[in-house]
Amino acid sequence: MEGYWCFLALLASALLLGFCSVVFALVWVLHYREGLAWDGGNAEFNWHPVLLITGFVFVQGIAIIVYRLPWTWKCSKFLMKLIHAGLNTIALVLAVIALVAVWDFHNAKSIPNMYSLHSWIGLTAVICYALQLVLGVAVFLLPFAPGSLRATLMPIHAYFGLLIFGTVIATALMGFTEKLIFALSSPGYQYKDSPPEAIFVNVLGVLILVFGAVVLWMATRPHWKRPQEPDLKISHRNGGTLDKEGSTMTDCSNAEKSDVEFNSEAARKRNLKLDEAGQRSTM
Amino acid sequence: MEGYWCFLALLASALLLGFCSVVFALVWVLHYREGLAWDGGNAEFNWHPVLLITGFVFVQGIAIIVYRLPWTWKCSKFLMKLIHAGLNTIALVLAVIALVAVWDFHNAKSIPNMYSLHSWIGLTAVICYALQLVLGVAVFLLPFAPGSLRATLMPIHAYFGLLIFGTVIATALMGFTEKLIFALSSPGYQYKDSPPEAIFVNVLGVLILVFGAVVLWMATRPHWKRPQEPDLKISHRNGGTLDKEGSTMTDCSNAEKSDVEFNSEAARKRNLKLDEAGQRSTM
Repeated sequence: MEGYWCFLALLASALLLGFCSVVFALVWVLHYREGLAWDGGNAEFNWHPVLLITGFVFVQGIAIIVYRLPWTWKCSKFLMKLIHAGLNTIALVLAVIALVAVWDFHNAKSIPNMYSLHSWIGLTAVICYALQLVLGVAVFLLPFAPGSLRATLMPIHAYFGLLIFGTVIATALMGFTEKLIFALSSPGYQYKDSPPEAIFVNVLGVLILVFGAVVLWMATRPHWKRPQEPDLKISHRNGGTLDKEGSTMTDCSNAEKSDVEFNSEAARKRNLKLDEAGQRSTM
Repeated sequence: MEGYWCFLALLASALLLGFCSVVFALVWVLHYREGLAWDGGNAEFNWHPVLLITGFVFVQGIAIIVYRLPWTWKCSKFLMKLIHAGLNTIALVLAVIALVAVWDFHNAKSIPNMYSLHSWIGLTAVICYALQLVLGVAVFLLPFAPGSLRATLMPIHAYFGLLIFGTVIATALMGFTEKLIFALSSPGYQYKDSPPEAIFVNVLGVLILVFGAVVLWMATRPHWKRPQEPDLKISHRNGGTLDKEGSTMTDCSNAEKSDVEFNSEAARKRNLKLDEAGQRSTM
């Protein structure tokens, strides 16, 4: 893999940034706020940032770059699709619980729902994410869609995946802004007074933004792309079964035992030469 | 150009969305707020959203896609770089004036500066944008940098350009959230009561987000990329002068008069075949 150490460094950075974001979210609600509970009060609201940062930011970010991990390139494409879809499903479930938490909290406190730009864009992002997941499973995971449809929809799927991810991060930043203004309301302890909580959550916002930037960089480098599967002829020669996208392998352990090593280096180098020509347009 | 009508439709949409965003910003400050002035009051603050939406969102967005306009493909690359850098310079100047406006307003009202996540990320975006512009001019516009350095830095330049653009949009959404919470503070006329101004500015936020999404889609489709310049051999045959990136043309009018039509179709089709292979990694 070209730039392997750079990839490793960025992956470690992404994991560290994502992990720190989740820890910061927990410290925020447990140390600075009222903790976590399901009682219609502030502690129920607190599930909202914790679950969204964990699922909709961190897990979604990992789901985006999971195909890029070079250790997975010997695993079957189908297995990787299952992992990609599985991580996105976890993120969606956590996001839905987070929405229920804030809905419950608003209703208990007689605060209207869906009045803010944060809520408009956030709910739209969750709906688009769910649609993206359903369409992704129907077209790319299940074996019914023809290859031409997959090829047509893949750039759209990839674009909307990254767009939704970026939109989720923007929505989180809006959410921090809202919460800090509303929650820090005592005289001398308002947002504009920069109390420790305000600084802490601002840093959390920066962490999430940098996490997003690292994920987007990793996801858009053509030379870190999972190699295309070998062509039909090579697959048949090796007696593999061919899925709609030409994968010859059915699971990771089979792949490791098999002699189809061509899948990693030769095919990848062939793709790279072609990709390099399109590098100027990779973002 | 492949998908010409689709490109035209998206370009028209982007221009309409960007234009509407500027009009919405003007209506917001002129109809719902205190208008525009330079007096240290609310009317001075109002330059902040108007100038940022005009320059840092609309003009920056157009600067990003200006290379993609097929009518410019016969113009010299140097001219297009000048236009790209010129538009970005206009955007930067407007952004700096917008920062001065809010700084003045804060100082006049004894409101602290730089306490919010909006200000942290916004100022960072302006500084990164200025650095990106200076480095872009030094490396890509001036004739000193070797081709290898340009080739190495181009993906980084393109990535950071789009990242800053996305960050600016996220910062604008945070700014709307802040302003609506602070400005709509009368009982019964708060943000949560969804008065007309709140709905209006929420719609403005959605317009800007969709504008950003359209620009990012247009900027990342490989088949809408400006064709690479023809190679050295062809350039010399036509008696052109070759700049560092191989352009044979010095200005748009010369190009239109010349017979170097090969620059558009043949070179573009050659690039397209290579790009198509890398299409899955174009976001």
